[in-house]
Amino acid sequence: MNRRERVPLYKAETKVIFEGMEPGTYIHYFKDAVQVDNETHEIHGKGAVNNRLSEMVMVTLGSMGIPTHFIRRLNMREQVVRALDLLKVKVVVRNTAAGTFVSRFGLEEGMRLPRPIVEFLWQQEGHPFQYVSEEHITAFGWAAPAEIEEMTGLALRINDFLTGLFFAIGVQLVDCKLQFGRCYSDFHDESRLVLADEITPDGCRLLDIKSQQKFDRGSYASFSTEGAFDYQEIGRRFGFSGPLGVVPQKVDGE
Amino acid sequence: MNRRERVPLYKAETKVIFEGMEPGTYIHYFKDAVQVDNETHEIHGKGAVNNRLSEMVMVTLGSMGIPTHFIRRLNMREQVVRALDLLKVKVVVRNTAAGTFVSRFGLEEGMRLPRPIVEFLWQQEGHPFQYVSEEHITAFGWAAPAEIEEMTGLALRINDFLTGLFFAIGVQLVDCKLQFGRCYSDFHDESRLVLADEITPDGCRLLDIKSQQKFDRGSYASFSTEGAFDYQEIGRRFGFSGPLGVVPQKVDGE
Repeated sequence: MNRRERVPLYKAETKVIFEGMEPGTYIHYFKDAVQVDNETHEIHGKGAVNNRLSEMVMVTLGSMGIPTHFIRRLNMREQVVRALDLLKVKVVVRNTAAGTFVSRFGLEEGMRLPRPIVEFLWQQEGHPFQYVSEEHITAFGWAAPAEIEEMTGLALRINDFLTGLFFAIGVQLVDCKLQFGRCYSDFHDESRLVLADEITPDGCRLLDIKSQQKFDRGSYASFSTEGAFDYQEIGRRFGFSGPLGVVPQKVDGE
Repeated sequence: MNRRERVPLYKAETKVIFEGMEPGTYIHYFKDAVQVDNETHEIHGKGAVNNRLSEMVMVTLGSMGIPTHFIRRLNMREQVVRALDLLKVKVVVRNTAAGTFVSRFGLEEGMRLPRPIVEFLWQQEGHPFQYVSEEHITAFGWAAPAEIEEMTGLALRINDFLTGLFFAIGVQLVDCKLQFGRCYSDFHDESRLVLADEITPDGCRLLDIKSQQKFDRGSYASFSTEGAFDYQEIGRRFGFSGPLGVVPQKVDGE
């Protein structure tokens, strides 16, 4: 890029957040990197697929009455989003037992849960995530009881929509991690919760229904160049390839 | 069919309900007929697509903790369902203004509603459907207040799932009509609501997102043989064609 050097506000393994052109906006830059077991790998085209997927999901959620931070896609790798006051707790909605949920509750991996279960995650800087209850959230002032209720309702709606969306392309949504932020009214005296961050395979556990193969970053636990398949395959099934040329062709040797 | 003649319990333009083999079950037979403006037309393969679609949706809803009457698909045109005590009111969930909703509220056809809106329909035998409120439903004893709440919650979840499911195949869910029934506990002292009837283009208004062409039975308002396209196209996009051969090839002359 030949533009004046931009100063990142926040840098993570898979994304960079810049100040937006308009006040009250950020630019979310989707990197090609994927992080597995504290190792970072590059997957050609991953950022572009995630940018498109997150745009598609957020635009549709918006039309369903679920507010999101998405404003518009800028280019293949960037989107303009609303600057929010992010909540300190993240939400996980689980449809199927996987990951730590299996060991924490002594379940079988892959067991369908009786209904979607909502959990809250909190992270102390430099420490791993931990599960917290409404009691912690309200006692420490991370969110008000009404916000917890609002967040739970929105998370369940988003999870039901995503379950249908992925099911139609032959993919099972095992669980998803969501982040919300407060959007204030002009006088800063009222706020409502808005879906933030991104909806991509990086925050969702996905399984190919036919092969039961993992379609998310968990599939990179033993990383290989074939890993690139998954993001591209999700993009292909949603029809992101073709005219737009967002999804690159399969890498040689796959 | 060479089997002993079965006696239908209920006959409609698009379906026939028979007594099931096991006690407490019915057989739902999907006809190829479609009814538009009180005229009935035959669409080759329609029943098979609707049977598969309803199976697919109900099995997935079941795995999400939403109870349905579906037990198993018997063959191309029939499925075994649980016999329920059907509620007298049906539920309509609307995402976009269409049909009578436009004239009743003075809206533009195709306007996105601020959020999904739930309505209740009741029909007096031999009369057209009419919209009723919670007040009518509870006063006439058609459903208890707790049942209305349960039905509303389930209908909204089903609508969010269907919105995602259809969106992934390029189809917009404008609205959907749902029917619920009571399933009693063994001692008949408790009941819960269960999704009944079918989830098919016959009860959903669908639009092709790209062409904005109608994909439901509304597209047969001016009926022609090309009408067969829609059901088959839905089946094709969901991958029902191919090995199973449920979806017949395009009719000559299309």
